[in-house]
Amino acid sequence: VTLNIDLPARPQKPRSIGRTHLLDKGLGTSAIRDLLDVASDSIDLVKLGWGTSLVTQGLEEKIACYTERGIDVCVGGTLLELVYLKGKVDAFVDWIGVLGLKHVEVSDGVVRIPAEDKSELISRLAKDFVVYSEVGSKDQNVVVTPAKWVAEIKRDFDAGASLVILEGRESGTAGMYRDSGEIRMGLIDEILDADIAQDTLLFEAPHKENQVWLMRHLGPHVNLGNVAPEDSIAVETLRLGLRSDTLLDLHR
Amino acid sequence: VTLNIDLPARPQKPRSIGRTHLLDKGLGTSAIRDLLDVASDSIDLVKLGWGTSLVTQGLEEKIACYTERGIDVCVGGTLLELVYLKGKVDAFVDWIGVLGLKHVEVSDGVVRIPAEDKSELISRLAKDFVVYSEVGSKDQNVVVTPAKWVAEIKRDFDAGASLVILEGRESGTAGMYRDSGEIRMGLIDEILDADIAQDTLLFEAPHKENQVWLMRHLGPHVNLGNVAPEDSIAVETLRLGLRSDTLLDLHR
Amino acid sequence: VTLNIDLPARPQKPRSIGRTHLLDKGLGTSAIRDLLDVASDSIDLVKLGWGTSLVTQGLEEKIACYTERGIDVCVGGTLLELVYLKGKVDAFVDWIGVLGLKHVEVSDGVVRIPAEDKSELISRLAKDFVVYSEVGSKDQNVVVTPAKWVAEIKRDFDAGASLVILEGRESGTAGMYRDSGEIRMGLIDEILDADIAQDTLLFEAPHKENQVWLMRHLGPHVNLGNVAPEDSIAVETLRLGLRSDTLLDLHR
Repeated sequence: VTLNIDLPARPQKPRSIGRTHLLDKGLGTSAIRDLLDVASDSIDLVKLGWGTSLVTQGLEEKIACYTERGIDVCVGGTLLELVYLKGKVDAFVDWIGVLGLKHVEVSDGVVRIPAEDKSELISRLAKDFVVYSEVGSKDQNVVVTPAKWVAEIKRDFDAGASLVILEGRESGTAGMYRDSGEIRMGLIDEILDADIAQDTLLFEAPHKENQVWLMRHLGPHVNLGNVAPEDSIAVETLRLGLRSDTLLDLHR
Repeated sequence: VTLNIDLPARPQKPRSIGRTHLLDKGLGTSAIRDLLDVASDSIDLVKLGWGTSLVTQGLEEKIACYTERGIDVCVGGTLLELVYLKGKVDAFVDWIGVLGLKHVEVSDGVVRIPAEDKSELISRLAKDFVVYSEVGSKDQNVVVTPAKWVAEIKRDFDAGASLVILEGRESGTAGMYRDSGEIRMGLIDEILDADIAQDTLLFEAPHKENQVWLMRHLGPHVNLGNVAPEDSIAVETLRLGLRSDTLLDLHR
Repeated sequence: VTLNIDLPARPQKPRSIGRTHLLDKGLGTSAIRDLLDVASDSIDLVKLGWGTSLVTQGLEEKIACYTERGIDVCVGGTLLELVYLKGKVDAFVDWIGVLGLKHVEVSDGVVRIPAEDKSELISRLAKDFVVYSEVGSKDQNVVVTPAKWVAEIKRDFDAGASLVILEGRESGTAGMYRDSGEIRMGLIDEILDADIAQDTLLFEAPHKENQVWLMRHLGPHVNLGNVAPEDSIAVETLRLGLRSDTLLDLHR
């Protein structure tokens, strides 16, 4: 039974635009299967947030719940930062390989990683994994100029990143957001003015207002990250103009 | 094993007062069954929010999870507004009929629907469905005078609505709420002073403070809508004075 | 498959420090089993919030889901306060006995209970149960001086309490918190300066900022209460320096 009304086109998976990445901060396997039964078409990748993968009992089974249904999985960039700090990058690479992960996130939002080290990490990992690099601090007191963001984004692509993630945290109050939660619009504009293709960027947007703002300014196919699993379907409706916030933008 | 302490009377289902309507923004079927196992007695109706029903995989099975357990289901009013805008009302009516829904929500919170068209929609749908009409804008910048609310509520009843829902959104920041989240108390007073029976109204109250305020002012049996599924049992405890916020109001 | 990086030591269960108590406000049995499959090692006790146990269908089965997996259960202190008000303490004691609960919470955050009555309740219950007493009001307009907190905490221990819980509610805006959500730091300091051992206290800390503040000031093994079930794993990562907020405090 379907209701045929003209909805905007939506790229099919696998897609480079209109991607929705979830932040999983501790779901159980039944919750994952249950979510994917109703929403798998709306979800492209799931990040097991920060170091949660190290304290999750039954991690392999949990990862399998996603990958069996065609959803890619990666672990949070913070874990790789810690591993770098501890001098255990080799062990980490082995570990995610054995876990069967195909994606890896490289960030420097917490641990100070010299630019050349970050580039080297990206290059090395890009040989065996799809690398998503992340730019922006997790500390809301650290405000980086747009020029530095642009330089870092370009450096990460040069090193081999497939996609650059703009930091927003689970809270939407750091990185590309002011501590008030407001989007740093000037920052976004400068990045896009710097000849960086929008479909190579993913914007962390944990809250509906963030998602709506980004869709209004960058189109419904903007790549979004740090979406809460319970909002998967809600984000899909925003992209299609099925919720009041974007309905009149997308339908006439 | 039961603990016998004198709790306030609570109308049994089906009930016209003390109704609790949930807002489902994307639950899976296991989550629904799990919720109803512990809380079905506390829940009267579930709204599949806005247009989520169009992007939910396995929609029929999901609806069956509710109806098999005696919980009525309707789709969000925003979807009918979109359908009206697209000139597809006939297809929509067929579709909800085939889905087996017995309730329908008619609103004009997003799309501009002339008063006569809204009344006509209500009259037409009231022949085959229980019609809940909704009054109030979803845009927090639109503030409508109490006199206009009263007129619209009366018009909707005249057209055949069984119940009128006062808009609050998922956020509690539009319609009957100021954008600060505060309830428009004067508005509620004027509506109830206008000879509109309270048990024909349902108040969208997504947050605990909203629920507590309404119970304090209108009694524990006030009809509440847009309750989050995970708050089903919490709302029931508020109605019975089993949580600190209402305990001393209901027990001596 | 494990990744070996040196993580801080974490006491094993059963433990007197580093305890994490959850606030369950209405989970179903599948959700519980699902949570415990991934996180049981991180959880010490679950409180069935306020009077939710009285409106939960299938309560015995729900309790069994926890206890079968080695998680202790108690009901919210508010329920015992109501029972005290109604003069039904005997029936309550029988009831939790039949339910097989081994822990009980004694509070006076809502109902006015004279000091001698609270002490008597604690003494009586301590014969058959592990008693957690709670200190602090649930009313955000009630601000109690540190000296009175200290006196009440000592009185509760003298009466037989095993652990004293510092009130924070589900909201983190009453008791040990200002209504703005800020921790009453001076209060915490005065309590700890009064020769009260930290491992006999449990701090209600529903939000991440609360948890992080307490870990920074009192160490990663601080006992935390009113943690939301979905944050179980996130709290565990904070204790181990696996999330940005505490990573640099715990790793070098």
